Amino acid sequence: MQPVEPIVWTQEGVVMLDQRRLPGEVVYHTYTDYRHVAGAIKDMVIRGAPAIGVAAAMGAALGARQSHAQTIPELRAEFLQICDVLAKTRPTAVDLFWALARMRRKFDAEVAKANPAAAGALPRIREALVEEALAVHRERREQDEAIGHFGAALMPRDGRVMTQCNAGALATGGIGTALGVIRVAVREGHKLEILVPETRPYLQGARLTAWELHQEGIPLKLITDNMVGHTLKTGKIGAIVVGADRIAANGDTANKIGTYPMAVLAREHDVPFYVAAPLSTLDLSIPNGEHIPIEQRPQEEVTHLRGVRIAPDVAAENPAFDVTPAKFIAAIITERGVARAPFTETLAKLAQEPAG
Amino acid sequence: MQPVEPIVWTQEGVVMLDQRRLPGEVVYHTYTDYRHVAGAIKDMVIRGAPAIGVAAAMGAALGARQSHAQTIPELRAEFLQICDVLAKTRPTAVDLFWALARMRRKFDAEVAKANPAAAGALPRIREALVEEALAVHRERREQDEAIGHFGAALMPRDGRVMTQCNAGALATGGIGTALGVIRVAVREGHKLEILVPETRPYLQGARLTAWELHQEGIPLKLITDNMVGHTLKTGKIGAIVVGADRIAANGDTANKIGTYPMAVLAREHDVPFYVAAPLSTLDLSIPNGEHIPIEQRPQEEVTHLRGVRIAPDVAAENPAFDVTPAKFIAAIITERGVARAPFTETLAKLAQEPAG
Repeated sequence: MQPVEPIVWTQEGVVMLDQRRLPGEVVYHTYTDYRHVAGAIKDMVIRGAPAIGVAAAMGAALGARQSHAQTIPELRAEFLQICDVLAKTRPTAVDLFWALARMRRKFDAEVAKANPAAAGALPRIREALVEEALAVHRERREQDEAIGHFGAALMPRDGRVMTQCNAGALATGGIGTALGVIRVAVREGHKLEILVPETRPYLQGARLTAWELHQEGIPLKLITDNMVGHTLKTGKIGAIVVGADRIAANGDTANKIGTYPMAVLAREHDVPFYVAAPLSTLDLSIPNGEHIPIEQRPQEEVTHLRGVRIAPDVAAENPAFDVTPAKFIAAIITERGVARAPFTETLAKLAQEPAG
Repeated sequence: MQPVEPIVWTQEGVVMLDQRRLPGEVVYHTYTDYRHVAGAIKDMVIRGAPAIGVAAAMGAALGARQSHAQTIPELRAEFLQICDVLAKTRPTAVDLFWALARMRRKFDAEVAKANPAAAGALPRIREALVEEALAVHRERREQDEAIGHFGAALMPRDGRVMTQCNAGALATGGIGTALGVIRVAVREGHKLEILVPETRPYLQGARLTAWELHQEGIPLKLITDNMVGHTLKTGKIGAIVVGADRIAANGDTANKIGTYPMAVLAREHDVPFYVAAPLSTLDLSIPNGEHIPIEQRPQEEVTHLRGVRIAPDVAAENPAFDVTPAKFIAAIITERGVARAPFTETLAKLAQEPAG
């Protein structure tokens, strides 16, 4: 069975599965305006760092196609503004900025080889941007498979594995990062049961990961987020594998809120804690996790649940991510192999290798 | 402002506030049959270990008043059965068993001094049981005040304090244990802001603790359970104070699910972790926490939220409590003073002291 497709490029525009309505409803929207793609990223129609990167790349290509610019300088100015709007959607996931930087580089590379006087220069640039966005998407799928391959070897042959949030097909557009590891392990004959924390406030675990696993017949048990400690203490967990939104040069990893306590508890119970992420998630410009901005989302996501008020009219905090220090991470699984401590060296080495 | 009354004895029967419907609705039910009191404990109309003890004592008194027994042996046989029904409601909170044992002792003491041939022997026993239940309730209030007094001295003068679940007025029938500590500290001039994890699946934090604090104007911030790690890491928390459902002889403490990970994270961040509970919560019959039965509640509490399905049709686990090993606990605050490690000695000493 093929994993679900959260995002597809079509001639009509960018088609996205509305992940806010899963698992109750499977609804696709077609976006024909890059500003609406930006809105969809911000409002979490699509989420998950790698998928946000794909959406941003497609949004940028869509914006260039929408543009009525008549000259290359006009198109370039507009394109930079389009990328800016897309960049201002969510602050933590570095794939977003990585994908937009790649699209800007592609633009400049196309300009460099274009003859500005020739007819068709602008359409060719626009076409190249669409191709680049499709390449980002295609590479995501290949990276997920490679991450899955390297990670599967770290999974127990027969046991229970915990994850967090949704680092699945819905989060990447491929087979997923953390769930890609689990999918490949299952494909290779590992007998796994997955422990899925619900991941409040947005319930990506209960709504998305449980749904993906259930659709493919991979056994799972749903738990609430505060059951992570008891489950690690008593539940015979063989490994934890999670995704990442940004990894600093030293291996400190930002991921969905709740990941950090899981890592601390994993160490307390000698359970190996793995991060699975493409190298585009690596931000070598920051030495450690203290430099990762943590998105604060609206209080209503905490005081309400699916539109129903669950608390009196009180103040809430809503940090969407937390940072797990590298010392709690057994290994970081990338598309080019597995990095272990000291991460500053091993991650830099993987990042420098020529792409395969 | 007086804290809310979760349970009151009246001539008509036991009146309980339906905590399942807070904070949206304030609804009281009057129970005239002890079996319905048992049902209310099981279905969490009332919850919190000390309040469960009060409800069980009142339920036993109610059952004795309902009985049509004509002789002391008949009444005794029936009373033991009544206590049995009440005991089978929830397995973890030891106050339940403590309160019922106390009611049985009271019964036997009354029989010992009664003249079985005298008219009015049975009504006098029934009346004595009602008085005993009221004494349990009155002592709860006094114990909460004493716990609050001892605990307040451990709270920061000006800072942020985290709690878990609801160990408040709603959980005890007094000013609360953990929230009693906070209430007395605020009364004595400490400037506190309380961090309240929502406490899935039943949301006692969001629905009950936030409601109690908000009603009294004590500043609070609501968070989801998976924000505990990030908040302890970055949120300048001065202390944690929680309640308890059962404390083993060595200090290992069962409390609402999510307490154990909070304690592990508290140690990681050098935040003192306090347990506030009456000595009736102490179970000297068990050497450590491994002997505490953990209640498994229905899966639907995890897959649904307030009646709305939030996950696909998958299996869930629902342990209602977890056990925090004594090594993570800075002190246990009781009505007779503060116990610190080695708890096996200090708790036994407090338990042996004659009641004040």
